[in-house]
Amino acid sequence: MPPLKCKALLNVDLGEGYGNLKCGPDDELLPLIDIANVACGFHSGDPLIMQETVRQCKAHNVLVGAHPGLPDLQGFGRREMKLSPEELTAITVYQVGALKGFLDKEGVELHHVKPHGVLYGMMCRDFEVAEAVMKGVPKGVKVFGLAGTEMEKAAKSVGVEFWAEMYGDVKYNRDGMLVIDRIKKPWKLEDVEKHVEQQLTTESVTTVDGTTVHLPVEDYPVSICCHSDSPGCVGIISTTRTMCDKFNKEHGYS
Amino acid sequence: MPPLKCKALLNVDLGEGYGNLKCGPDDELLPLIDIANVACGFHSGDPLIMQETVRQCKAHNVLVGAHPGLPDLQGFGRREMKLSPEELTAITVYQVGALKGFLDKEGVELHHVKPHGVLYGMMCRDFEVAEAVMKGVPKGVKVFGLAGTEMEKAAKSVGVEFWAEMYGDVKYNRDGMLVIDRIKKPWKLEDVEKHVEQQLTTESVTTVDGTTVHLPVEDYPVSICCHSDSPGCVGIISTTRTMCDKFNKEHGYS
Amino acid sequence: MPPLKCKALLNVDLGEGYGNLKCGPDDELLPLIDIANVACGFHSGDPLIMQETVRQCKAHNVLVGAHPGLPDLQGFGRREMKLSPEELTAITVYQVGALKGFLDKEGVELHHVKPHGVLYGMMCRDFEVAEAVMKGVPKGVKVFGLAGTEMEKAAKSVGVEFWAEMYGDVKYNRDGMLVIDRIKKPWKLEDVEKHVEQQLTTESVTTVDGTTVHLPVEDYPVSICCHSDSPGCVGIISTTRTMCDKFNKEHGYS
Amino acid sequence: MPPLKCKALLNVDLGEGYGNLKCGPDDELLPLIDIANVACGFHSGDPLIMQETVRQCKAHNVLVGAHPGLPDLQGFGRREMKLSPEELTAITVYQVGALKGFLDKEGVELHHVKPHGVLYGMMCRDFEVAEAVMKGVPKGVKVFGLAGTEMEKAAKSVGVEFWAEMYGDVKYNRDGMLVIDRIKKPWKLEDVEKHVEQQLTTESVTTVDGTTVHLPVEDYPVSICCHSDSPGCVGIISTTRTMCDKFNKEHGYS
Repeated sequence: MPPLKCKALLNVDLGEGYGNLKCGPDDELLPLIDIANVACGFHSGDPLIMQETVRQCKAHNVLVGAHPGLPDLQGFGRREMKLSPEELTAITVYQVGALKGFLDKEGVELHHVKPHGVLYGMMCRDFEVAEAVMKGVPKGVKVFGLAGTEMEKAAKSVGVEFWAEMYGDVKYNRDGMLVIDRIKKPWKLEDVEKHVEQQLTTESVTTVDGTTVHLPVEDYPVSICCHSDSPGCVGIISTTRTMCDKFNKEHGYS
Repeated sequence: MPPLKCKALLNVDLGEGYGNLKCGPDDELLPLIDIANVACGFHSGDPLIMQETVRQCKAHNVLVGAHPGLPDLQGFGRREMKLSPEELTAITVYQVGALKGFLDKEGVELHHVKPHGVLYGMMCRDFEVAEAVMKGVPKGVKVFGLAGTEMEKAAKSVGVEFWAEMYGDVKYNRDGMLVIDRIKKPWKLEDVEKHVEQQLTTESVTTVDGTTVHLPVEDYPVSICCHSDSPGCVGIISTTRTMCDKFNKEHGYS
Repeated sequence: MPPLKCKALLNVDLGEGYGNLKCGPDDELLPLIDIANVACGFHSGDPLIMQETVRQCKAHNVLVGAHPGLPDLQGFGRREMKLSPEELTAITVYQVGALKGFLDKEGVELHHVKPHGVLYGMMCRDFEVAEAVMKGVPKGVKVFGLAGTEMEKAAKSVGVEFWAEMYGDVKYNRDGMLVIDRIKKPWKLEDVEKHVEQQLTTESVTTVDGTTVHLPVEDYPVSICCHSDSPGCVGIISTTRTMCDKFNKEHGYS
Repeated sequence: MPPLKCKALLNVDLGEGYGNLKCGPDDELLPLIDIANVACGFHSGDPLIMQETVRQCKAHNVLVGAHPGLPDLQGFGRREMKLSPEELTAITVYQVGALKGFLDKEGVELHHVKPHGVLYGMMCRDFEVAEAVMKGVPKGVKVFGLAGTEMEKAAKSVGVEFWAEMYGDVKYNRDGMLVIDRIKKPWKLEDVEKHVEQQLTTESVTTVDGTTVHLPVEDYPVSICCHSDSPGCVGIISTTRTMCDKFNKEHGYS
């Protein structure tokens, strides 16, 4: 199987604290990543954190995307909720607009939108949900998602540019969907290495049941995602960074 | 004393419900007003209501401004809170950005920013608060406020275009500040008539202690404000509409 | 078919406003009802409203129950959310405890717990949800629900006293479940009369598809429920009051 | 100056996370403390965390008090807000009732109420605020506070039993009030030792300006407070534990 056809860029969710409560070690992660998905206040994040995160991303030359979630701070956007399509569009417009306010102020471009948590999962499985969210994305802004799902279909249908994601710290099911554990399990760094390398160099992944499946990323630009709230995330993200750098060097992506 | 030097435009706060709970009779008010200040989700308003309110304003050719408030849904943004200047800037950027998201989607321009409730009052009295909010207003967007206060000073200092407000349904203190009642008192419509006419035709107002004070609106554009949550607001706003129309006609503002 | 075997008591949801936003005309309804289900702050209601509502219920000799909902103010507890059983128990304990605080202060007994909105619906359909909520109900406190559903089964299983409800302003499906419209339709008062009378005098109801089904209330105490946020609710509730009084008089319930 | 006239009991705030976001290392602190002040959902804490924290306190024989705060999750209850006395009473009743729900379920007694953050500070300075909160405390439940302040006066006035606090990880001003830093400074453990020992053995403290002031704890029971969100809190609390144990042993309190 062929390697990834583009430069491997590493994206991580940042700014997922709230008020005095912190989520991940954002300060340690900023130097390691290419792209940040910044929480927009619904599943986490607040205006002060967003303001500071955008400034930090700018200072570290990290591209910034909006990371909208379900309106559920208590559940961190990880509890399924049934919203009407109108509501899904509206919560997307609201959150992306809020983040764009900070970006406009700092003179930074909105790079993309990446839906958070169970909203992302619902979009993979349910075309109506995916389509409603896509309708809330500003013209000309791309969306990050999982190739081969309803999310990809909805992006095409609505006319939104799509970037495919691979996951450095999440395992896959045989159907190509992600395995979401309520409590995240720790990773051995050598397993992260293998997991990332396999995806980058073969566009395929060994799933939890031991089979190897193709990741249908086609000609989409691809970004590798890791999470800032995983146990041992600094190690995982450093390792993924190293694997991306290695891949990019070997394949002539500066 | 001279009359107002510009066309009298009527502004009203809209979209101040939340979820299933409604605030004012927005549908009845939309045909009566020139300018809407749309709640942005912190003191009231939610994404679905904002989306619908922006669409309705567009349909009625009503100019739209952002109406950011303190992060206090329970207190409707009418309970004083001590926020740091950084926080005040951040909550302004966030809320204005969120509303702008809906406006961009509908192709409608953001006309202005009008701070809500006690935030407006704090800005009138406290330069630091006013300055921090002004810093959160996007470049080129004007701010509505009370002339002769710290708010006006901060607008000048930060370089934000300022529009002065007169109030159709709020009384004034001798110092030119507004009289804020926790529970709003009903108005007789003939008193609204006199109150509005006096302000429009003389740039002055009779205060609660019976003295007449000049409203230092200078050469600022002026807008008359009424509230959608006052008892009898449809009558008050109709009356104010009539007085504005009369003034505009008599003074040659089409 | 036999009539109801107990006195018909009328219950209504009260205190469903939030901050400055009001929901139903509680003041007009208090003299008309026997039992209030008081919102506890999650789907609506706030501490100040709860405090006042409990005092008003006491003044009107209205029995008070807790009306806990999903943690979703924006959706008024009417959007399905997937919570773990542990969470469902915890949100029940929290909300019922909060209301009990006000009751204890006023020396009023907690009469019952009636789950709100989609939580009620989920309990009717899903035993695990129903059981988790029942586990959060304080010992010795009864639960209002729909007979013949998973809710009734869970009450038995957990050992919670159960009261069956009939609905004055909601129609039924053929399977005995309620017809939940997103936007409530108005009722003609003569239809309310017939709907209530049929249920009280025959323990059965004509469903939306025209069949007549038995309401399996067995020997449970029964309460008739109406809603304070229906269009024309004062008329509907007055009518239901009249029908209950008539039934009670005719059947010797003082 | 005389030593403390009672056993030194160590109290710490617990359960101050929200959803997925954690605050302090509660698991490490539970074995070190006598008394927990459990957050009640307004400044932090949610039903699931409260449920688990109450169970953990029971398992560790830690006494449990309610820790109500201002309704300001974003500000962690540390931003001053102006609430009416009615509202202050209501938010106290609500939060204490909610916690009591979990305690009743676990068969654990509500030991006390300790107001959180700026609410505590406002009560020290403002009798009206203190009195309003005291009115929300259930009959027979004691309140923790600072002796020599409006809080103590209000407890007397309302008839609430009062326990005086000393602070292991907070410095004092010359007027006996606490020095609240927005960002908490780290402590050297030998300074914690001296700070705690001085207070326990002399009922006095050296203030930030170098003077020594008497702590007017009179004959009130006294508890020493440390915080779970201070940098290095496990060390600070271990040290305070050791100092309390030493004091208790030397003074014959088993």
